[in-house]
Amino acid sequence: VAIVGVGLIGGSIGLALARRGLAKQIVGIGRRAESLSAAKGLGAVTRTTLDLREGVAEAELVVVCTPVGQIVKHVCEAAAACPADTLITDAGSTKLEIVTQLDDAQLRGPWRLGVRFLGSHPLAGNEKKGPEHARADLFEGRVVVITPSERTTTADCDALEDFWTALGARVVRMLADQHDRAVAATSHMPHLVASAIAAATPKEYLTLTAGGWLDTTRIAAAEPALWQQILLANRASVLESLSRVEGALAALRGAVEKRDAARLEQLLTEAKQVRDALGS
Amino acid sequence: VAIVGVGLIGGSIGLALARRGLAKQIVGIGRRAESLSAAKGLGAVTRTTLDLREGVAEAELVVVCTPVGQIVKHVCEAAAACPADTLITDAGSTKLEIVTQLDDAQLRGPWRLGVRFLGSHPLAGNEKKGPEHARADLFEGRVVVITPSERTTTADCDALEDFWTALGARVVRMLADQHDRAVAATSHMPHLVASAIAAATPKEYLTLTAGGWLDTTRIAAAEPALWQQILLANRASVLESLSRVEGALAALRGAVEKRDAARLEQLLTEAKQVRDALGS
Repeated sequence: VAIVGVGLIGGSIGLALARRGLAKQIVGIGRRAESLSAAKGLGAVTRTTLDLREGVAEAELVVVCTPVGQIVKHVCEAAAACPADTLITDAGSTKLEIVTQLDDAQLRGPWRLGVRFLGSHPLAGNEKKGPEHARADLFEGRVVVITPSERTTTADCDALEDFWTALGARVVRMLADQHDRAVAATSHMPHLVASAIAAATPKEYLTLTAGGWLDTTRIAAAEPALWQQILLANRASVLESLSRVEGALAALRGAVEKRDAARLEQLLTEAKQVRDALGS
Repeated sequence: VAIVGVGLIGGSIGLALARRGLAKQIVGIGRRAESLSAAKGLGAVTRTTLDLREGVAEAELVVVCTPVGQIVKHVCEAAAACPADTLITDAGSTKLEIVTQLDDAQLRGPWRLGVRFLGSHPLAGNEKKGPEHARADLFEGRVVVITPSERTTTADCDALEDFWTALGARVVRMLADQHDRAVAATSHMPHLVASAIAAATPKEYLTLTAGGWLDTTRIAAAEPALWQQILLANRASVLESLSRVEGALAALRGAVEKRDAARLEQLLTEAKQVRDALGS
C-alpha cells in the first residue's frame, strides 16, 4: 500500500494497517522529509520517499490523502507510474469534482493499463493535523463513504469496502453528488458556522466561555488552507446548506424578537429532536 | 445551606459541599419528590422538603438553582422565611433582569431583616439535566461570575467568593449588565446557532455526521423550556450577538459565493485565531 500524504488521515491509515498486519509494505510519500520521518518513527509507514512516482511503483493500492485541491493531480501522477491494474483511492472530503475530473483524466491518459480510481471519504478527521495526531483506531466505528461512478466495477467496490472494513470502518456507497450534498449539511456548513461563532466572539469575553462555546467552535481550529479548498470544491451544496441554516436562524431570531416564548421553545424542541437522534 | 432546585447544578453544589465537608446540613428543596429522593440517594443533600419556607428556616446561605424564569419568585419566598441576615444567591444564566427585580423586591418586602441577594452564575452547565448527572467536581476549574449591585457590601462579595472558591471555582466579579452582554456572546448566541445547525440538517443525512457536527450541535440537546427563558431574559444582548454572528456568516458566504479562496482562508484564519486562544 502506498500512502500519498502522511498527515492525520494518511498516518492513521498506515498505523491501522501496521497494527493489524494488513500490508507487507507501507510506503509513505510526502513533500516534507520531517513529516515522513515522523510517520516512520511512529510506525505508520515502513518506507518513505519524496518521489511519488518511485513510491507507487510497486503498489497494489494507492491511497491519496493530500488536500482536496491536490488530489486530482496526485492521482494522475500515481496512475502514470504505478503497476498495471492498481486501484487508487483518496480520502478527500468532497467527491463530485474529484470523481468527474478523474473520470475525464483517465480517458485522456497516460494512465497505466487497467488502473482505476474509486473515491473514498473517511468521516474521521478532526481539528488536528499532522502524523503526530495519527491513531491506529481513528477509523473504528466511523463511516467511510465510497463513491462509485458509472464506470466502477462491483469487484472494485467490494475490494475497497474490504480495505476500509479491515481498518474498523463502516462503509456506505453513495453517488458522488449525493455525498457532496450530504456532507455540505453535516460537515461543511457546520464548519462555516463554527468559524462565524468564533469570529463573532469579542476577545474580551473569552474568559467567560464554557463547554457550549468550546464545543460549538472546536472545528474552527482546523486548518484554514485545507478547509478553503473543501468549501470551494463543494460550493453549490455549501451555499444551499448555508441558506438552510440562515433560514433556521432567522426563525429563532424572529421568536426572540417577538418575545414569543412558545414559538421559541417549539423551535428549540425541533432542533433538540434532531440532535437527540444521535449520541453525545 | 439550603438548595432550591436539585437538578444538575443544585445537585452538584450539594455533592461538592458534602464531599468537602463544608456544610453541617444541606437541605434540598424541590417540587418533585422523585428528584429530591434521587438527590438524597446520591448524597447531594442531607434533608429534603417540598416546602420552600420550611426548608430555608435555618439556612445561613440559600442557593436558588431553579430555571431563570422562577428565580425572582423563589428568592422572594426564601427571603420572607429564612433567618435574619441570611445571604441568598442563585445560579441563573442571566443576571440583569434578576438583580434589578430583586433590588426592587427587597425594598417592597416583606424580606426578613438583613437578608440580602447577591447573584451568581456558575459557567458549568451542559446539555444534561437532573440530579443523576450531578458531579462533585462540576465547578472545579470553572468560572463563577458574581454580580454585585450598588447595594452589595464587600463582605458579602467576599463571603460568596469564598463559597464558590471552596467548591473549586474561580470567581469573577462583574456588573450584571456586563455579564449579560458577555454570556450572550459566549453562551446564548452559540446556543441558538447550534440549534439552527441541528434544525437545518436533513434527517436523511444524519448517518453522515461525524465529530464536527456532533460538537457544534451538542448544546442543542439542552432543555428547551430552560433555554427559552434564558434567551428571552437576555433578549437585547442576544439579538446584538446574533447580529454579530450573522455578519460573520455573511462575510464567509460572500467569499464562497465569489470563489475568493484568499479571502475565505483569511476569514477562517481569523476565526481559528480566536479559537486557538483557548484550549480544546
